[in-house]
Amino acid sequence: MAPPVKNAVRAAAAPTEEWSSQPEVTAAHPPKNAAGDGDRRPISTVLIIIAMQTEALPLVNKFHLSEDIDGSLFPKGVPWVRYHGIYKELHINLVWTGKDSILVEFSKFGCVLAGVDSIGTISASLVSYASIQALKPDLIINAGTAGGFKAKGACVADVYLVSNVAFHDRRIPIHVNYLYGIGARQTFSTPNLIDELNLKVGKLSTGDSLDMSPQDEVLILANDAVVKDMEGAAVAYVADLLSVPAIFIKAVTNTVDGQKSIAEEFLQNLIAVCTTLAQTVSQVVDFISGKCLSEL
Amino acid sequence: MAPPVKNAVRAAAAPTEEWSSQPEVTAAHPPKNAAGDGDRRPISTVLIIIAMQTEALPLVNKFHLSEDIDGSLFPKGVPWVRYHGIYKELHINLVWTGKDSILVEFSKFGCVLAGVDSIGTISASLVSYASIQALKPDLIINAGTAGGFKAKGACVADVYLVSNVAFHDRRIPIHVNYLYGIGARQTFSTPNLIDELNLKVGKLSTGDSLDMSPQDEVLILANDAVVKDMEGAAVAYVADLLSVPAIFIKAVTNTVDGQKSIAEEFLQNLIAVCTTLAQTVSQVVDFISGKCLSEL
Repeated sequence: MAPPVKNAVRAAAAPTEEWSSQPEVTAAHPPKNAAGDGDRRPISTVLIIIAMQTEALPLVNKFHLSEDIDGSLFPKGVPWVRYHGIYKELHINLVWTGKDSILVEFSKFGCVLAGVDSIGTISASLVSYASIQALKPDLIINAGTAGGFKAKGACVADVYLVSNVAFHDRRIPIHVNYLYGIGARQTFSTPNLIDELNLKVGKLSTGDSLDMSPQDEVLILANDAVVKDMEGAAVAYVADLLSVPAIFIKAVTNTVDGQKSIAEEFLQNLIAVCTTLAQTVSQVVDFISGKCLSEL
Repeated sequence: MAPPVKNAVRAAAAPTEEWSSQPEVTAAHPPKNAAGDGDRRPISTVLIIIAMQTEALPLVNKFHLSEDIDGSLFPKGVPWVRYHGIYKELHINLVWTGKDSILVEFSKFGCVLAGVDSIGTISASLVSYASIQALKPDLIINAGTAGGFKAKGACVADVYLVSNVAFHDRRIPIHVNYLYGIGARQTFSTPNLIDELNLKVGKLSTGDSLDMSPQDEVLILANDAVVKDMEGAAVAYVADLLSVPAIFIKAVTNTVDGQKSIAEEFLQNLIAVCTTLAQTVSQVVDFISGKCLSEL
């Protein structure tokens, strides 16, 4: 099989090639949909991974979860917060990436410490790894807000179940390294869940910026994404490494291809959309209760 | 102190503000230079974090390290590789992020699995976290190749000890969130090491792309970086969370602001520059041997 690899490398290698052009090869990480013996027993432990406090709190209240105040699950120093409880016979663990302490210096007033949600791919991947190691969940739900593409039919307050994830800000134009950068993956397949809840289904593209540069846009379009977030593909990468099935529920706070400022629209709709997100996640958890992975 | 915070938020909030403009506030994560009681006893365990096999192997040979073949240090499924051994009374652990398996599909020839170095911030942060947890190192050395800025005096084969790190591809234009995105940090201070080895010192900017978009360039300039890599600020973030002193040694494979293609120059110089990198890391380790953190 050596010659085809060589051809493929040549086809994808040219660093001056436009990202929008179609390479000769396509690639994906094969879906790890089988969860082994686990898919024949009812799901017991669910890990919900969330990046913002505003996204987390409606679900903490909905499921009557308690904060893990002894903090023994994670090492000293990390800001990650675990809420847990039993809801409809499921062990629910909601892990929020917590607040980062930023030292803000004012030329006139000295320094103040500010807390900022630990959003983005690094915190999401770390908290996924540490939580999977500590909790051995049967299923991960990554829930959060996202930007939506009007041109693909997304509207503010729509909630999507994600079929595929990929990155749009990891450009590595050397041979097949670019495929690693894009990191395209299928998510755990849940046809019955989609039918039962009549969920919108679409592809998600992940990057570490709230805004969208022209380079991001090219890769988001190449990823065929209807929603854009800052964590999903990172959670998927870690879940895939550690062979834990993961689903992604993303609620649209703003359009990315509209006329309004992304940041303004995001802030304007955040609280209302988080309520909608929590309702859908709650319905998903209700559906999961008592079922095996293979019944989703 | 409420009014200044409010002012600061206003100053940094405007999402339409150009990234190149100077906000009213500046910020940094305060350096955690004190390593507690550890800085009065000789350094014993060193963790070297490396993203590419080509960067790792000269050091594995130099220090006569053995591969950890039972793999018990890390969970099943992760590609991370640990090499270890004792060199000049130091417990040296070199952890390479390993190869990612990419399924490459050929329209005419079927599928082939290709292995690609797990470069970038997600793998670097995960391997830093897992290695710190498992090995409790006294000191981290993140060694690797980087792009250099000719305009700042960097030439191919220069080796830099990094004074400060920051990200250039995490644009979050909402209030002080943008400071979290940039994630500026001072590294562990090593004045004696710099003097003794006569090392070049400069600032590092980290992002997940090998190339440089115009948006990246604006933030790299704002970060005042002389070198640009794909891991450093992520390793620094995790080391900082877990209070482990970390130093960063970056060898220049290519210029980012030159006439040549970044990818071509990178590939052309990679092997030779990795030899130079290994020589410097080896000198650094020789210097560290027998010293306390406070003597570096």
